[in-house]
Amino acid sequence: MLVIAERINATRRRIARAFEERDARLLAREVRRQAQAGADFIDVNAGSDPAREVENLSWAVEVVQDCTELPLCLDSANADALRAAVRLVRGEVVMLNSVTGEREKMARVLPLAAECGARLVALAMDDHGLPETAERRMEVTASLVEAAGQHGIPADRLYVDPCIQPVSTSPGQAMEVLSAVFRIMQAFPGVHTTCGLSNISFGLPGRALVNRTYLACLIMAGLDSAIVDPTAEGLMDAVRAAEALAGRDEFCMNYIRAAREAGV
Amino acid sequence: MLVIAERINATRRRIARAFEERDARLLAREVRRQAQAGADFIDVNAGSDPAREVENLSWAVEVVQDCTELPLCLDSANADALRAAVRLVRGEVVMLNSVTGEREKMARVLPLAAECGARLVALAMDDHGLPETAERRMEVTASLVEAAGQHGIPADRLYVDPCIQPVSTSPGQAMEVLSAVFRIMQAFPGVHTTCGLSNISFGLPGRALVNRTYLACLIMAGLDSAIVDPTAEGLMDAVRAAEALAGRDEFCMNYIRAAREAGV
Repeated sequence: MLVIAERINATRRRIARAFEERDARLLAREVRRQAQAGADFIDVNAGSDPAREVENLSWAVEVVQDCTELPLCLDSANADALRAAVRLVRGEVVMLNSVTGEREKMARVLPLAAECGARLVALAMDDHGLPETAERRMEVTASLVEAAGQHGIPADRLYVDPCIQPVSTSPGQAMEVLSAVFRIMQAFPGVHTTCGLSNISFGLPGRALVNRTYLACLIMAGLDSAIVDPTAEGLMDAVRAAEALAGRDEFCMNYIRAAREAGV
Repeated sequence: MLVIAERINATRRRIARAFEERDARLLAREVRRQAQAGADFIDVNAGSDPAREVENLSWAVEVVQDCTELPLCLDSANADALRAAVRLVRGEVVMLNSVTGEREKMARVLPLAAECGARLVALAMDDHGLPETAERRMEVTASLVEAAGQHGIPADRLYVDPCIQPVSTSPGQAMEVLSAVFRIMQAFPGVHTTCGLSNISFGLPGRALVNRTYLACLIMAGLDSAIVDPTAEGLMDAVRAAEALAGRDEFCMNYIRAAREAGV
């Protein structure tokens, strides 16, 4: 399970302020907390101020790399910001977040991802908008896999995000997404699945509970990555339990080790 | 989601002692705690002492009915004990736990369930032993549904238990059971599924976490009943979150109400 840690996101007020004030220590603290909780990638989103996004993202990329060896997931809807930031990446591994099945988006992001050998989050939506069924998500995934292949991006660099929608306003979508994850993992060998998990609980109380419960179900359906807050209450416990249940943790060794460390 | 509350089980040492000492107050306390936590049925298992099981079960049935209006789930491998206890049931609704697909077992329990109009837990195992695949569980379920029908027991009185095995010793079985639940709910209209949940975590630390995580996944797969300890940490929270996610809680009303009551 690849954990992409989401807390450095400038759409959060505290993080937006840290960007404005160039508060490197706050970012460093978020990196450390997430790394300690089990992050595999650190997502960096500087999208609070479109006019300054290129420089803000570049600044954050330097700051985060100064305090961790973990690879980055560069998170922007702005291909120019991604292009500028990816040049600053020091390690071999980087993830771009994200492309979609929209024509214009693919035309801007796929060449960049191919050029720098990046892993790529690919939202299963296209010029027709958000998908409503598992079937539509499959269709968009097929287009994305094909277009990526034409740019020389192999399937195993793709992390398809089936676009979770809030269960409070879109009942039925939680099941469609679950079904899409299962079917994508069966139908597209090598392709990964991921998700912006916290959308599921938008508008509900007890969001951490809904998030971790849904994540466990998605893992059992085959999900092998997620964009999450690994410091959220019970989240990593649910991940480890679900991985043991899904048969992805031989002899439940990871689960047992974590339980012992937690004194359970 | 039908919650069959399992705490009054004489294979637990404290409960065995309560049976020996005819400690009605301890049983009453367990009934109240489970009812308050959200039990729909109270399971009563008196199986600590085979020689006295008939009288022990009958005693407990009277005690439990003296302190709750909730229906009972009479839990015994001994058909004579079930027959004696079912005569004492005051309400209209009762559940028998359990029959299996074994010939001799069906011959003893199906007529009794038919006679008293009972709901019936049916373990998906037969004379060939415990099933190893979802496919075998489907085959045994088909036999059970057919045999029950021949005795005049309609499909919607059956609660098929796919026989959970410990994930610590039987990796792969958690996924087979999940798949079996999904397929049984699709293939046998009206038939319910249930499970003795806590088997999944046998031998592991942090059992409550594994139990509730797996239960949520099973609910998303279609499970509509479970034999559980509703007082276990986080269990009912996970049930309500999973039911909302599965689209079985319109506008997430139950989930939201419980969260408010808990002050979340």
